Amino acid sequence: MERGFAVAEFERRLSRAQAMMGKADIGAILITTEPEFRYFSGFLTRFWESPSRPWFLVLPADGKPIAVIPSIGAALMGQTWVEDIRTWAAPDPQDDGVSLVSDALREAGGPVGVPSGPETALRMPLADFARVKTMSGLRFRDDGGITARLRAIKSEAEIEKIRAACTVANRAFDRVGEIAREGTPLDEVFRGFQRLLLEEGADWVPYLAGGAGPGGYGCVISPATSAPLAGGDVLMLDTGAVVDGYFCDFDRNFAVGHATAIAQDAHARLMEATEAGFRAARPGARACDVFAAMAAITGTGEGAGRLGHGLGMQLTEGLSLSPRDETVIEPGMMLTLEPGVETGPGRLMVHEENIVIRDAGAERLSRFAGPDLPVI
Amino acid sequence: MERGFAVAEFERRLSRAQAMMGKADIGAILITTEPEFRYFSGFLTRFWESPSRPWFLVLPADGKPIAVIPSIGAALMGQTWVEDIRTWAAPDPQDDGVSLVSDALREAGGPVGVPSGPETALRMPLADFARVKTMSGLRFRDDGGITARLRAIKSEAEIEKIRAACTVANRAFDRVGEIAREGTPLDEVFRGFQRLLLEEGADWVPYLAGGAGPGGYGCVISPATSAPLAGGDVLMLDTGAVVDGYFCDFDRNFAVGHATAIAQDAHARLMEATEAGFRAARPGARACDVFAAMAAITGTGEGAGRLGHGLGMQLTEGLSLSPRDETVIEPGMMLTLEPGVETGPGRLMVHEENIVIRDAGAERLSRFAGPDLPVI
Repeated sequence: MERGFAVAEFERRLSRAQAMMGKADIGAILITTEPEFRYFSGFLTRFWESPSRPWFLVLPADGKPIAVIPSIGAALMGQTWVEDIRTWAAPDPQDDGVSLVSDALREAGGPVGVPSGPETALRMPLADFARVKTMSGLRFRDDGGITARLRAIKSEAEIEKIRAACTVANRAFDRVGEIAREGTPLDEVFRGFQRLLLEEGADWVPYLAGGAGPGGYGCVISPATSAPLAGGDVLMLDTGAVVDGYFCDFDRNFAVGHATAIAQDAHARLMEATEAGFRAARPGARACDVFAAMAAITGTGEGAGRLGHGLGMQLTEGLSLSPRDETVIEPGMMLTLEPGVETGPGRLMVHEENIVIRDAGAERLSRFAGPDLPVI
Repeated sequence: MERGFAVAEFERRLSRAQAMMGKADIGAILITTEPEFRYFSGFLTRFWESPSRPWFLVLPADGKPIAVIPSIGAALMGQTWVEDIRTWAAPDPQDDGVSLVSDALREAGGPVGVPSGPETALRMPLADFARVKTMSGLRFRDDGGITARLRAIKSEAEIEKIRAACTVANRAFDRVGEIAREGTPLDEVFRGFQRLLLEEGADWVPYLAGGAGPGGYGCVISPATSAPLAGGDVLMLDTGAVVDGYFCDFDRNFAVGHATAIAQDAHARLMEATEAGFRAARPGARACDVFAAMAAITGTGEGAGRLGHGLGMQLTEGLSLSPRDETVIEPGMMLTLEPGVETGPGRLMVHEENIVIRDAGAERLSRFAGPDLPVI
């Protein structure tokens, strides 16, 4: 896998966006959030972790993006394909990029489309957003979902990055026996597994969740406690590890010492459901159809959250495999298949794999688990 | 350090917020962002990495916070001091918490204050925010900076968590010689240092930056390349490691093989500036005064970004040590001192330490480096 992308990839992304902007009568798109900013510019840094400075990218109807950014980012931005880079000494309590970005928008012309639909956020102070509206004098509206629709279909270069992230996690999961056994506190397991992911080539590990308990676990989003693993526990680790800015997102279950019948049965059913989801995830099927294929095996009700989702520059992005999402699946979409089963009162087990949709059906990106629960 | 906080700590935070809301004539505060949500609820999870679901906390003028959250968070939220927990099966493309949070706001009564000042963001879709405004029928305004002002002054329990994070990083920096030497590619150094932080007790490592080069580096926010360290290089590693949801944020410089005169001189000057900042950072001084104390030694101009910042639940938060920030320093504030010097055209060196402000002056939380550049 080569780092970064060829300039031609950014040109394609931009020309597609501009074609859609033309149809939607949008004069410029204003971007404030990391994935969208990186999608159109190639600007990759962990510095977004700091909330202190806003970053702006303006996509005009014609011509290349305009970056309006804190001066601390100028050198790195200079290495991207973006040429028009305007900076200020941020943070500036008087004018934190407001007049600069208002000027850039005025040059591009309105109406200004701002990502406003599901999963979007506005990463700038609301008070400054109001000032930009006034100062630019332009009309503001939503972006018509253009950025979300573009990001949903991955290029081959993007797929290779996610494949690389999956390969890292595959190798780390193979080594869980090195860092987890009966008696190991769960928080040590979490630290140890993050170390394994780094050793196997993750650039960084933005997400790790999991749980442990007899015949299942109670919650899949809690931080780890220091409770030690006990014989007969099921241990689940779910990671979002990053390679070159792209995520994998899948999990593995392990039996500690020995597998109970409840846990082994649940695991086999989860794998059956995952394979059913894999077969259902074809071009033309809807997200809710893939949900239904898995739910028929796990017995998941209509009121459930979701049994998988899109994946890419974010841990979760795009469609939801839920009864409420009728998005039609297309080639180039990356999905997670994530069925869950109840194993007792307040107890569950979940499983997750990563796939990419091709013309003829789904392709496996993570190395699918087998029906047998591995014992550590 | 004990994990989490006593309920009394959350009661204090809330009653202070409600006293300020009363003075500002705010009926309810609407919170959508992770640190603010956690500050008032104690809800700690890495699940915010997923952008797919909004999370809402409503602070009423009287009584405890109301959590309006995706059902996937109900079990974990049930372990906090929050009692009124309202959930929906998210993501729901028809109504993703909009009517639930509108109801909760209507019960609390307006005007609704929304964090809108520096460093804030709105973590929900703009289109849904507009719907909440309409559906609730309430008046919306900024929150008067209440959440930011409260978070700026740390309790002793918060200081202990940041101290614990600093101790982890101190120990990891002591071991850099194990993972970095002449010939080690910089990206391997980055992976190795994250591993060391985890081994020394970090829960996770949301931020690592750095650079390497002869007599300084070119950029302090770039991801690592695979270029190997060379003899005479200066290597800088800057980490934001987390313990129980609180950050440290400091860096260390190392000479690879041998220290050049330029690098050694710059390092001594950086430490001199850091100590000057340490002496200047006293209650009653302004942020710009601390900047001036350091800038007098490093020769930093007025047009610079900043030479340090607040610290806590985020990598950077609160004031900026810059010529433009006149915030008065108070006991309980956590600061980083982060001077930088140019060492050549397009080259710089930076240094950073962490302190807490006490009644009589600053207290060191990171173990300050000495003037001599350590050699690895």
